[in-house]
Amino acid sequence: MKTVGILSPGDMGHTVGERLKAHGLRVIAHLADRSARTRGLAEKAGIEEVDSYDSLVEMADVVLCILVPAEAGAAALTVAKALRRTGTDLLYADCNAVAPQTTIKIGRTITEAGGRFVDASIIGPPPRREGATRFYASGVHAGKLAKLEDYGLDVPVISDNIGDASAIKMCYAGMTKGLTALCTNLLVAAEALGIRDALFDEWGLSQEAMLKRVQGLPSMPPKSRRWVGEMEEIAATMAAVGMSPKFHEGAADIYRFVGASALADRTPEDPEEPSLEEMLKLLVGSLPTR
Amino acid sequence: MKTVGILSPGDMGHTVGERLKAHGLRVIAHLADRSARTRGLAEKAGIEEVDSYDSLVEMADVVLCILVPAEAGAAALTVAKALRRTGTDLLYADCNAVAPQTTIKIGRTITEAGGRFVDASIIGPPPRREGATRFYASGVHAGKLAKLEDYGLDVPVISDNIGDASAIKMCYAGMTKGLTALCTNLLVAAEALGIRDALFDEWGLSQEAMLKRVQGLPSMPPKSRRWVGEMEEIAATMAAVGMSPKFHEGAADIYRFVGASALADRTPEDPEEPSLEEMLKLLVGSLPTR
Repeated sequence: MKTVGILSPGDMGHTVGERLKAHGLRVIAHLADRSARTRGLAEKAGIEEVDSYDSLVEMADVVLCILVPAEAGAAALTVAKALRRTGTDLLYADCNAVAPQTTIKIGRTITEAGGRFVDASIIGPPPRREGATRFYASGVHAGKLAKLEDYGLDVPVISDNIGDASAIKMCYAGMTKGLTALCTNLLVAAEALGIRDALFDEWGLSQEAMLKRVQGLPSMPPKSRRWVGEMEEIAATMAAVGMSPKFHEGAADIYRFVGASALADRTPEDPEEPSLEEMLKLLVGSLPTR
Repeated sequence: MKTVGILSPGDMGHTVGERLKAHGLRVIAHLADRSARTRGLAEKAGIEEVDSYDSLVEMADVVLCILVPAEAGAAALTVAKALRRTGTDLLYADCNAVAPQTTIKIGRTITEAGGRFVDASIIGPPPRREGATRFYASGVHAGKLAKLEDYGLDVPVISDNIGDASAIKMCYAGMTKGLTALCTNLLVAAEALGIRDALFDEWGLSQEAMLKRVQGLPSMPPKSRRWVGEMEEIAATMAAVGMSPKFHEGAADIYRFVGASALADRTPEDPEEPSLEEMLKLLVGSLPTR
């Protein structure tokens, strides 16, 4: 394991690349069709640019696909074409927050083009510090991805089944981001109903952990737009096993609503964060009933 | 304040009656149309039976309506008829978990029949011990209901607006029971997907509070059937302010699903509680996809 391709070095991807580079690997990316912000992050992380997807799949020992869920399928198709053109048997890990049935489809795209596919999912923040982030992996080639443990990543292998690594991510994020959406929904309603102070007083008596948790809500809006697709993948995961998809369809609604506000125009690097009160007042002001 | 009518002395109502009686009030109920279990709970609590709704509204200084949400409207209509027949100006507190717009409608039913209406909502468990349960009250007559503070109840008055006490309950229960439903949804899915152990291992690393919280899930099924209507009232509350009702429609789905299982046949008095593992296996077995 010498060279890792990152597709693409956004918020999560460039931090992963930076970490692998710091542990001695060469990290490459093809950036022609990426945003100026992603190009800037890649440069900052010391990620080398290669001139085409063909070069990417020929030079890399493994490609990590780290994108928003809606882009995962198209990215795999692009790589599959490069695999056919070059005849390489690249190890390709889809690390995106997608439903197991979506991963299975993506896996088929890669393997039918001659690649070796690993289902992977990332739980935790961009891996700046030790022990906070895990790259769950499943599928018969998952052990090969786990070689990245020698280069600063934590890669627990769950099983031989494509879909299992995605499933754990769906259930995990369904809880954390589902709860964040639920909090947002209820607090905007409480503010609109004029009883938010009374609710916080009651939480102070009986739900102190919740009162503390919601203080973190103002960091969510810059991430809301990319969480819409993730919530839709979770809803699809629930529907596929026969459980209700409505929770996470509702969560997608909330993130769409927040994403349509000016609050979502901030980037995570922007130091100016609104207070919870400011955030709620702004969101109430943008309700269709006002 | 000498005599309190309880409509009806179920799980919550009989405990409220028992507490008021222990603090020196006379507590009455009309039980002709109630279940054998409710009649038994009333007797145990020392609640006196009166022969008709007319007697109830004539003898009581205040009637507390404590029912499942779906019965709240019909109960108010029954009381309104008794108010018209007897010409009394009863103080009537709707304590049910209903949407503000539902409370406003119920209040109209009572005031048009000559009664005085208080919007009330109960947050906390049946009030067996001091300080754990609050009866939030709003409306111009809320101060009169607060006289019950001399008899062992905690009755914070929020405002003069009918609907505010209901609103705080909707937002509070929307969180607590919404989160319980979300946990159930995701854990049944995790069990069905075969990754529940891996998810719990991950929670052990990064979501310890959640791991602890879900251990309490097996106490939920006996309450699931009556929570369906409450979730529907919360969904209606969200829709009325322009927020997404889908979360709580999903929560209603979950409680309907759990309520259809044998797990929901237990009563809260039954000491035999399944383990979380047993509960999840049974629920997965009843999925439509199995």
